[in-house]
Amino acid sequence: MDGGNYIKEGRDSAKSTCLIFSPNEEAVGALAKSLKLFEKHGVNLLHIESRPSARVPDRYEFMVECAPSGELGIAIETLREHSSYFNIISRNHKDNRDTVPWFPCRIRDLDKFANHILSYGSDLDANHPGFKDPVYRARRKYFADIIYNYKHGEPLPHVDYTEEEIATWGSVFRELIKLYPTHACKEHNHVFPLLIENCGYREDNIPQLQDVSNFLKDCTGFTLRPVAGLLSSRDFLAGLAFRVFHSTQYIRHSSCPLYTPEPDVCHELLGHAPLFADPAFAQFSQEIGLASLGAPDEYIEKLATCFWFTVEFGLCRQDGQLKAFGAGLLSSFGELQYSLSGKPELKPFEPFKTAVQKYPITEYQPIYFVAESFEDAKEKMIKYAHTIPRHFGVRYNPYTQSIELLDSKPQIEGLVDNIHQEMQILLDALRKL
Amino acid sequence: MDGGNYIKEGRDSAKSTCLIFSPNEEAVGALAKSLKLFEKHGVNLLHIESRPSARVPDRYEFMVECAPSGELGIAIETLREHSSYFNIISRNHKDNRDTVPWFPCRIRDLDKFANHILSYGSDLDANHPGFKDPVYRARRKYFADIIYNYKHGEPLPHVDYTEEEIATWGSVFRELIKLYPTHACKEHNHVFPLLIENCGYREDNIPQLQDVSNFLKDCTGFTLRPVAGLLSSRDFLAGLAFRVFHSTQYIRHSSCPLYTPEPDVCHELLGHAPLFADPAFAQFSQEIGLASLGAPDEYIEKLATCFWFTVEFGLCRQDGQLKAFGAGLLSSFGELQYSLSGKPELKPFEPFKTAVQKYPITEYQPIYFVAESFEDAKEKMIKYAHTIPRHFGVRYNPYTQSIELLDSKPQIEGLVDNIHQEMQILLDALRKL
Amino acid sequence: MDGGNYIKEGRDSAKSTCLIFSPNEEAVGALAKSLKLFEKHGVNLLHIESRPSARVPDRYEFMVECAPSGELGIAIETLREHSSYFNIISRNHKDNRDTVPWFPCRIRDLDKFANHILSYGSDLDANHPGFKDPVYRARRKYFADIIYNYKHGEPLPHVDYTEEEIATWGSVFRELIKLYPTHACKEHNHVFPLLIENCGYREDNIPQLQDVSNFLKDCTGFTLRPVAGLLSSRDFLAGLAFRVFHSTQYIRHSSCPLYTPEPDVCHELLGHAPLFADPAFAQFSQEIGLASLGAPDEYIEKLATCFWFTVEFGLCRQDGQLKAFGAGLLSSFGELQYSLSGKPELKPFEPFKTAVQKYPITEYQPIYFVAESFEDAKEKMIKYAHTIPRHFGVRYNPYTQSIELLDSKPQIEGLVDNIHQEMQILLDALRKL
Amino acid sequence: MDGGNYIKEGRDSAKSTCLIFSPNEEAVGALAKSLKLFEKHGVNLLHIESRPSARVPDRYEFMVECAPSGELGIAIETLREHSSYFNIISRNHKDNRDTVPWFPCRIRDLDKFANHILSYGSDLDANHPGFKDPVYRARRKYFADIIYNYKHGEPLPHVDYTEEEIATWGSVFRELIKLYPTHACKEHNHVFPLLIENCGYREDNIPQLQDVSNFLKDCTGFTLRPVAGLLSSRDFLAGLAFRVFHSTQYIRHSSCPLYTPEPDVCHELLGHAPLFADPAFAQFSQEIGLASLGAPDEYIEKLATCFWFTVEFGLCRQDGQLKAFGAGLLSSFGELQYSLSGKPELKPFEPFKTAVQKYPITEYQPIYFVAESFEDAKEKMIKYAHTIPRHFGVRYNPYTQSIELLDSKPQIEGLVDNIHQEMQILLDALRKL
Repeated sequence: MDGGNYIKEGRDSAKSTCLIFSPNEEAVGALAKSLKLFEKHGVNLLHIESRPSARVPDRYEFMVECAPSGELGIAIETLREHSSYFNIISRNHKDNRDTVPWFPCRIRDLDKFANHILSYGSDLDANHPGFKDPVYRARRKYFADIIYNYKHGEPLPHVDYTEEEIATWGSVFRELIKLYPTHACKEHNHVFPLLIENCGYREDNIPQLQDVSNFLKDCTGFTLRPVAGLLSSRDFLAGLAFRVFHSTQYIRHSSCPLYTPEPDVCHELLGHAPLFADPAFAQFSQEIGLASLGAPDEYIEKLATCFWFTVEFGLCRQDGQLKAFGAGLLSSFGELQYSLSGKPELKPFEPFKTAVQKYPITEYQPIYFVAESFEDAKEKMIKYAHTIPRHFGVRYNPYTQSIELLDSKPQIEGLVDNIHQEMQILLDALRKL
Repeated sequence: MDGGNYIKEGRDSAKSTCLIFSPNEEAVGALAKSLKLFEKHGVNLLHIESRPSARVPDRYEFMVECAPSGELGIAIETLREHSSYFNIISRNHKDNRDTVPWFPCRIRDLDKFANHILSYGSDLDANHPGFKDPVYRARRKYFADIIYNYKHGEPLPHVDYTEEEIATWGSVFRELIKLYPTHACKEHNHVFPLLIENCGYREDNIPQLQDVSNFLKDCTGFTLRPVAGLLSSRDFLAGLAFRVFHSTQYIRHSSCPLYTPEPDVCHELLGHAPLFADPAFAQFSQEIGLASLGAPDEYIEKLATCFWFTVEFGLCRQDGQLKAFGAGLLSSFGELQYSLSGKPELKPFEPFKTAVQKYPITEYQPIYFVAESFEDAKEKMIKYAHTIPRHFGVRYNPYTQSIELLDSKPQIEGLVDNIHQEMQILLDALRKL
Repeated sequence: MDGGNYIKEGRDSAKSTCLIFSPNEEAVGALAKSLKLFEKHGVNLLHIESRPSARVPDRYEFMVECAPSGELGIAIETLREHSSYFNIISRNHKDNRDTVPWFPCRIRDLDKFANHILSYGSDLDANHPGFKDPVYRARRKYFADIIYNYKHGEPLPHVDYTEEEIATWGSVFRELIKLYPTHACKEHNHVFPLLIENCGYREDNIPQLQDVSNFLKDCTGFTLRPVAGLLSSRDFLAGLAFRVFHSTQYIRHSSCPLYTPEPDVCHELLGHAPLFADPAFAQFSQEIGLASLGAPDEYIEKLATCFWFTVEFGLCRQDGQLKAFGAGLLSSFGELQYSLSGKPELKPFEPFKTAVQKYPITEYQPIYFVAESFEDAKEKMIKYAHTIPRHFGVRYNPYTQSIELLDSKPQIEGLVDNIHQEMQILLDALRKL
Repeated sequence: MDGGNYIKEGRDSAKSTCLIFSPNEEAVGALAKSLKLFEKHGVNLLHIESRPSARVPDRYEFMVECAPSGELGIAIETLREHSSYFNIISRNHKDNRDTVPWFPCRIRDLDKFANHILSYGSDLDANHPGFKDPVYRARRKYFADIIYNYKHGEPLPHVDYTEEEIATWGSVFRELIKLYPTHACKEHNHVFPLLIENCGYREDNIPQLQDVSNFLKDCTGFTLRPVAGLLSSRDFLAGLAFRVFHSTQYIRHSSCPLYTPEPDVCHELLGHAPLFADPAFAQFSQEIGLASLGAPDEYIEKLATCFWFTVEFGLCRQDGQLKAFGAGLLSSFGELQYSLSGKPELKPFEPFKTAVQKYPITEYQPIYFVAESFEDAKEKMIKYAHTIPRHFGVRYNPYTQSIELLDSKPQIEGLVDNIHQEMQILLDALRKL
């Protein structure tokens, strides 16, 4: 088994509560009034944002992040009464009815959970191949440390890999590129030469995340964000909604180059990165992310399972032949061959069924799911997402790099208007063809 | 007259030629072959980019920027014969048939013309109010210098304004906010309190471009980019296609705070910035930008005129009353009052007519154009844009922050697919309403 | 002046009231209950229709037409209380708030006003050229009589025209075809040879309405329906919503073949029919019709004025030359020449302005409006229609040949679904291109 | 086994060839020239139609139906050379490359195959329950005769059923309505009371086709067309593309009221009719029809199989329970119970698999396919249809009641324009909600 198993519940994250609301009054003083209310009830505010409301014409919309302090419940109820729009998103959603599980609304909100990881740096399991190697553990701490303070918008940390690390990468790289022409899906094979050309994919060089991220950004808008360890499923999937992929930067232990119990830079750059350059795959991945935002916990698990059986371990049929597109396969010399060997069971990808399939994480998969195409998988994912109980629609606005929570008529009118405009672009392009 | 007159032809820009092409062969070696061709003909390449082709499935697409060197013409013709797609964009479009006037394809390409400005820093006209003030001229040079090396993606330069500068800003600010409630359009008045709240708009503080840019980015995706002086119309308008507004950072001379012969930070922040926070206005502005990309020179002038009579000097009717939304008006105490005084001539905004209206740049406008609404102005602008002779459609991809030049069937299918997907978001949101 | 002036208020039409409602209960017995209510209050029902509801899933929808009898008001109020959907359309809308002016919901409802005409058959004005001709008056009565009992779906009456009538037609035909090549719009000239080919347009033959109607049906779905005289504007325009054009069948008096004070078969077949074969013109005409349904009286007048200045007296510019497309011009030898002579005033067609322009009906028009294209005129008409105060959207369903009054979410979802389906047809066709 | 088995190949149909073409010349004389060509080569024309071309602006389009006469091949090749558009649809498609299998282009073309039935009137199989009953056979001949001359647009034949026939209907009706509440899908149960209310569905009355057809027309635009016996699959499915269902009018033999070896009026009116009143089901059925037009023979068989396993024998799951919606089940007391008994095998409806499933026609089905919903089945059917090898897209134009064969850019632009217009209706309705 190789990589991919980082879809696990992470550390408990902060207990702040986010309120999004539009005061009833049009007046400019509305915000000041609201803020006084929090003060009165002893609620500490961690962040305040005031914007024009997309929901109520001529009104403002506020987002305040409240620390768990004072009489927050009373403040919320009072505020709700004086608001024409009111919504709570919170990590404490289980304790509160009418509360949507917290999710990042803006791309910079990803900073908020970047360090909510399962284990930190040198904390390795006893059966980790590098457990007894003090140099490796120091190195793992180093990687964790440089990432710890990373903030959205900053350049990705540049790493000078050691010769030993490069040799490990080389072993993996050398073996896998033998299999790709026959085992990898055509999208992977189409992009790979461009990664060699543009990003320094070579046997004797570990590519820098920044170079790969830049290339992906140009292709589909996907970017890499360094992460020091395993995020919770909810947080990890949320990143995909922004076309952000959380990527490790350290490498597996040199003692067993063809095995890693956790994702590492080989898994990310050889398995995941090439596919994120494909527009249809990028859309598919983002759909899983969007579906997860504010979804109930049981659906997070289902979506993580869909992710597992596609982005991590997915197969597809191309020109009548079975090919691999899952990163867990494309970065594992052993499982890549096994998965196409005819031995494991194959089922058609169908989110309603795939989402509830149990799976092992420490051995080869007994069952793989086969997608017809990324477009088809995306369509199915969208249909599945529409069955997730949420009282709002969700859309990513790539201009503002923020999530639009669609729950008002003016927003829907805006959406129709957008489509209208796209149709005009279409019509113009068609005429000029 | 106040500000806004920077829509003038700038310095001659670099003479490089950009080729975008897809070799006939699918093979990976296609790029290497192409590059040898340039070498053979002694053509120096300034930049090379290889990406998956959006036009020809399973092919690559290359973008090479050629210095004016060697036998470029022969290299081009040879390459064209071996390409399934071939397009030239060049600053030298006048000398070459089949060549599209150069435009930035990616947001980072804006770096290429950032310093193609009409006059630099301390080079002031003899009749400039600050011409004889060495302190002011030194200060202007300082502003030019900090911007000179700015690159896309970097934080915007932070400026510590002098007390004198702040006092100048204060004079302007104080006078204008008296007029806004009665003279400015409702969108300006709606956003203004948020700028006070979020960006430090105060009588005693000149807001930092970065703060304003961040706010705009959150609202509509517009960003500010510092510029040291006047760009050519073609370059300036191209920025709008990316929702990038080139903004000066220096301030007018303290001797006449209510007058400036050129745009300055008062004009940008009080006149332009508030409107770019409005989604419909942002779309309208971007439409002008998109229309300009690769357009013939005579249309650049027409589009600049449309810009002049809307974004700079536009009026609109709201609830039966005439209001100003043009930045040239909203940043000029005198002309703002004059424009609504009933004295100047008013005509309905109609791009086919507005685009050919002559206008003075050193005095109050004798004619203003009145828009029905930003949506309506946008619709009209789109219709006008479709009459510009270009053999391709144009679309901005906000994910990759790049311009898609639409001239193939696969791209159009992709567009239909996108619309399809937006319709599903619409349907889901509608059901949940 | 020639033809076209039949946009005048007709006779008072029947005073029945139509109720459209969905009972609160899902049960099958809901209709029986409702009907008992009318009985209890002594209300006579002229027509009952029960259908699945498009607005409330799993419910039924009833349409009952009530004679002005019994305690109708009380019955209505009681029913309204027990209904999840309730709407009244009535000719008596002026006396009742919450009542929508009556309009035909199904194509067969056009039968309801077919005979609400201003004057019948032989009732001619004293200054009518045929006033003193008993043979002509008898003939006019004959035409009125054969149409009187016409019902939707029946073959259109075949008429054996007299030699005198054919001679009159011949005079008109002979003169007009001389002018068409230079004066008529290209759409008219494109279709005319097909009318000769398919429908017997000849100097020595008056085409049969049925033949022309069949041809139009094949081209755009427009059909002709015979009418004995002038309908009210409201009724006449309503026909257009169904792509039904009410056409006279009699001919003008032989004494002045180039003049008629009212529409006649020359006006209909030479002026109107050719244009209805053009898809864009057909859509434009239907838009006026759709806009009129349930509109307040003052808007009916405005729409009739728009109709007057387009379908009856419209000009357009084609390849830089002024051409006529209005039927009142295309059927008048004199006014057709006059309208393009440069003498009358020309204004751009702009519904907001055109709708309120006064005009004479007994002489040549002093002002004509010029459309850019039928598509553009249609777009403008749609925008104008959206400003008409109605609390519902309107759509024609050509499958059921009925008007959908859009005022519920399920209908809007259905609409999105429809668009979705059209997009798939588009995508498939695009791929196959 | 009951009904439904009329999807079998019918008699050989006429051997005429239809040519659709646009001459290269714009001139009016183009048609005359083309016709001379046929004359010259001794080709007899059965029908000629001239219309404005939707494919080539400013050109005409001709449809000529050629009898198999003269030098047709030479005439075709000559014509093809002088045409900017050329298409052949023919019953002889097997003998000719580049020829599309014949299909009706206009709703009136259904008249062309109405009598291409497998067996006529009194020609019963030896094992038919009525084989030895001369009265029944005379009656069957009577039904065949009244339908023989039926033409599109005429009122459907009214039939006075005998007491014996009514008794047979009564037996079937009585038994089935006991099962419907528990066995039929909700759409069937929702519509049934309306059929009782509007169309005379009663134990002691056999409804008239005209009444049912009128009701369906009002609900979804579906109409019934009487047919004297079994049509070929190709012809029968083609009817559905026009939302026309070919319906028998005779009734089964009174000796075994719960059995019929062929479709009869009980099967049509109790099984099929109710579902055609449901908008989603109507769309689904039409999609099968549209998919069949011009499809290769092997796909006709596949589509007929899809029809068999849905419209005839389909099951669906509603609120967790299995229900029947296939007419073959809803009109068979025995198989309706059997199908939901848990004994037969159930598979999910998936056109790619369903289309190739073998099935018996003289006994209960061993396998049934289960649809998730009509919308879902429609979506799947559309996707399947897109894989049928045809070089054109297909769209039904309900205004002209004709098939649009989409194979040109102007048509696609028209389609985009249509969608555009629907979006405006959507936007208006949304605003008024």
